[in-house]
Amino acid sequence: MPDDPAANGLPPTVDVEGGSQHVGPAAPLMAKPLELNTFRENVVILPRGSEAIRPERLAGLRKVEVRAGQISLLATPIISEDGLVGPGELGLPQPAFRRLGVKAGDFVVVAPARAPRTLAAVRAKAAGESLSVEDYAAVTRDLAAHRWSDMEIAAFLMACAAFMTPEETLWLTQGMVKAGRTLSWNRGIVVDKHCIGGVPGNRTTLIVAPIVAAHGLIMPKTSSRAITSPAGTADTMEVLAKVDLSEAEMREVVETCGACVAWGGRVELSPADDVLISVERPLSMDTPEQMVASIISKKVAAGSTHLVLDVPVGPTTKVRDRRQALKLKKLFEYVADRMGLTMQVLITDALEPIGRGVGPVLEARDVMAVLENRPDAPVDLREKSIRLAGQVLEFDPALRGGAGEKRARELLESGAAAAKMDQIRKAQGPSPIANALGDLVHEVRAEASGHVEAIDCLRIAHVARLAGAPTDPGAGIEILRRTGDAVAAGQPIYRIYGSERSDFGFAVEASGENSGVRIA
Amino acid sequence: MPDDPAANGLPPTVDVEGGSQHVGPAAPLMAKPLELNTFRENVVILPRGSEAIRPERLAGLRKVEVRAGQISLLATPIISEDGLVGPGELGLPQPAFRRLGVKAGDFVVVAPARAPRTLAAVRAKAAGESLSVEDYAAVTRDLAAHRWSDMEIAAFLMACAAFMTPEETLWLTQGMVKAGRTLSWNRGIVVDKHCIGGVPGNRTTLIVAPIVAAHGLIMPKTSSRAITSPAGTADTMEVLAKVDLSEAEMREVVETCGACVAWGGRVELSPADDVLISVERPLSMDTPEQMVASIISKKVAAGSTHLVLDVPVGPTTKVRDRRQALKLKKLFEYVADRMGLTMQVLITDALEPIGRGVGPVLEARDVMAVLENRPDAPVDLREKSIRLAGQVLEFDPALRGGAGEKRARELLESGAAAAKMDQIRKAQGPSPIANALGDLVHEVRAEASGHVEAIDCLRIAHVARLAGAPTDPGAGIEILRRTGDAVAAGQPIYRIYGSERSDFGFAVEASGENSGVRIA
Repeated sequence: MPDDPAANGLPPTVDVEGGSQHVGPAAPLMAKPLELNTFRENVVILPRGSEAIRPERLAGLRKVEVRAGQISLLATPIISEDGLVGPGELGLPQPAFRRLGVKAGDFVVVAPARAPRTLAAVRAKAAGESLSVEDYAAVTRDLAAHRWSDMEIAAFLMACAAFMTPEETLWLTQGMVKAGRTLSWNRGIVVDKHCIGGVPGNRTTLIVAPIVAAHGLIMPKTSSRAITSPAGTADTMEVLAKVDLSEAEMREVVETCGACVAWGGRVELSPADDVLISVERPLSMDTPEQMVASIISKKVAAGSTHLVLDVPVGPTTKVRDRRQALKLKKLFEYVADRMGLTMQVLITDALEPIGRGVGPVLEARDVMAVLENRPDAPVDLREKSIRLAGQVLEFDPALRGGAGEKRARELLESGAAAAKMDQIRKAQGPSPIANALGDLVHEVRAEASGHVEAIDCLRIAHVARLAGAPTDPGAGIEILRRTGDAVAAGQPIYRIYGSERSDFGFAVEASGENSGVRIA
Repeated sequence: MPDDPAANGLPPTVDVEGGSQHVGPAAPLMAKPLELNTFRENVVILPRGSEAIRPERLAGLRKVEVRAGQISLLATPIISEDGLVGPGELGLPQPAFRRLGVKAGDFVVVAPARAPRTLAAVRAKAAGESLSVEDYAAVTRDLAAHRWSDMEIAAFLMACAAFMTPEETLWLTQGMVKAGRTLSWNRGIVVDKHCIGGVPGNRTTLIVAPIVAAHGLIMPKTSSRAITSPAGTADTMEVLAKVDLSEAEMREVVETCGACVAWGGRVELSPADDVLISVERPLSMDTPEQMVASIISKKVAAGSTHLVLDVPVGPTTKVRDRRQALKLKKLFEYVADRMGLTMQVLITDALEPIGRGVGPVLEARDVMAVLENRPDAPVDLREKSIRLAGQVLEFDPALRGGAGEKRARELLESGAAAAKMDQIRKAQGPSPIANALGDLVHEVRAEASGHVEAIDCLRIAHVARLAGAPTDPGAGIEILRRTGDAVAAGQPIYRIYGSERSDFGFAVEASGENSGVRIA
């Protein structure tokens, strides 16, 4: 008969869903940084003869849990059959080494990963149940701590896509905010403007921000780089100024100028949302509920109190018809109201790209033409920016109701917005990237005579990305004929710019197969 | 203006769903085997300065496509920042190196992975659509070729769990069979017996197979090792004989003996099913549709024509009530009929584990006691095996209808089944593992006097696994009191066996928290 295990110094069992399960005796190992980069995923390398864990115990598992002090993360194990890692060591590629916050030689502990208790939520959701506010709080905490695997996240997202109540969307949003840090600005009104995306060239933020800051409102804008589009707000701003700002730098710019346009990647707001997005993107999942939770959680975490949201509707954008747009608007309003975010949703028409340029350098050129009131500035970009800025200005209680758009136009036409943009650019610092257009140029020509009937936003974005945008900021598309314009067969309808031969070739070829411009 | 790219020798675009997308120019790299093991996943290691692909192009991607001759597979890329892999090389850990079928120094080609066209099926399924027979054929082909990532598989499974018609289950089953190889036996009737699982000690196959082979039917049984249970059929048979047989060895055993009990891992039947299971398991997903497609595809691919299926129903097994069991039976019958598989579904009661032993060595002991007609042989295991074997024998057209069970009993009691088992064991070869019981023993005792009311199958399985089964074949549980038996407080109700101190301690501790035996 064995001794009483409790009196024996055996490690305690850990209660996980589905019964208690032991984590296993965990011998400490020495951290050995490895010059390997596993991108977003945490990977650790164990030797075949590890002192901490028998590799055969890992064969049925997906993950191990690695702990160093207070930090614990899940990682995918790899077994080294030769001497890359010694028996008392744990090999740590990036980002696992960085995320653990250890130095070479520090002790870390590794054990088979417990199934996170919150996975019960995946099963409950899959069974058609609604989750509680506590469930969402726990789920978002585990997501932010990288405790779920990609497949678990995918299963959760699919279950949510099948059925999710407005209350659940709210609780998910609240959980996302609480699972990360939040910024605060000590101001009564902190404004923001956001577009749900899908329209190339729609770079209104870079015009709205200086207008509203010139008026005196605070707009600490953090934005993303392009993910599936040829340019994000941060990519385009980067042509004009530095965008990779620390939180302290960002605060200083906002203090001085009233607004900034920074890349949001450094400040890590709503990290659970980032984790969900990393799975939604490759799956091309884009549900209203996830969109609402993502956008509102980011804005609330960034300290915004008032938001104007642009929802473009068109046959080739994310939202295809007005009915769908109105439904989305209702959900945004439901969640925003309960999160204490004042929100104005604008449903806008999107039958073609906005402005002339698609790609960072070309879009920055359009933005500056509008701000500088140049006669050749794209009218659609200017008018849409004034409309959106007007809506943002209406948040100012001092402004007479309905006077926002007029005030926005004044600030733009007087040059106040241009001066503000100049001040913001100087405060953020010089752009670290080249701002020249690509030197490879190809003109796509009309195959028939007639009028331009429609320009396919998806196709234009696809060709611009093939040409190299946004990685190559000078790559992209310059649109020469807009919807309604007359063209004769053989006349140029847009130009493709690029600087890398093979990428450029692909873009030219794709435009030859289908230019995306319909002539009738 | 650039030259015409088509005339330029540029690589062709590859049409993928969502528009054409280039695979990128692919410079050949030299395969460099690495002494690393990444378990089931394909991983490749590229140097920072690779000649074939710029690492920054990979940051947004999950996978690269690696080709060597006709073989192409998807792999997760890791970047080496130092000299582990040279600029013209591609580092290949196992299993990627093995799966590519190359030698060190062979040329391989690597490119960003295209999204498989079949991912449109995930989106369609998620949107509540039914997929076509062609869709399922394509999906199973891509699954078998490891073209989907885990998260894509999880998304697909969740969408299927929400809604799947019987026709779709059939088409999935057909696709699974076609996406792999099939065995054929040149016999009119090839029988099999399968249990959907969930009842510890339910090792009837090892008794049914020798009975039906002694009668003269062909039963080429391939079975799995335990995944979540304390012993699979293959684990228990391995105590008695070698089970890791090549296809040729298996054929020879069946030729000589009429039956075999081999591990199915070597023959790789219905590989798409294996891929789905590898994601279902960690997600604890177990839907009727996936179960039906999995079991029937494996049986049809193995060349079986007639199948008896045991569906145990009980409060602590997979199927909890009779209504659920009947629904499952209908779906099995629908798919089996259309796949040309003659199938008899038996719904059996399962209120406690079967036999006395739980764990490979203990279960093998029960099996041999039944086959050798020992007086202490567990009656429930014997009677259930006779009932199932009788059903299988009824497939023999020469046997008078209703005489199957009587014939099975005769073959068992006459010693013919024991002799057949002996022949099968000799033909398969000696067991490569130890068959001793663990030397650590703990008796779990009744806390009160009364009658045993129920024994929790899940709890018994959990404690037996903690004790080390099936990795340690001598670990497990010996049940001393069955449902209905009278016990006095302090009397032993089961024994836990083990041989590894810490594992054993966990099992003892778990049994102390909850023994799984309810006394009333």
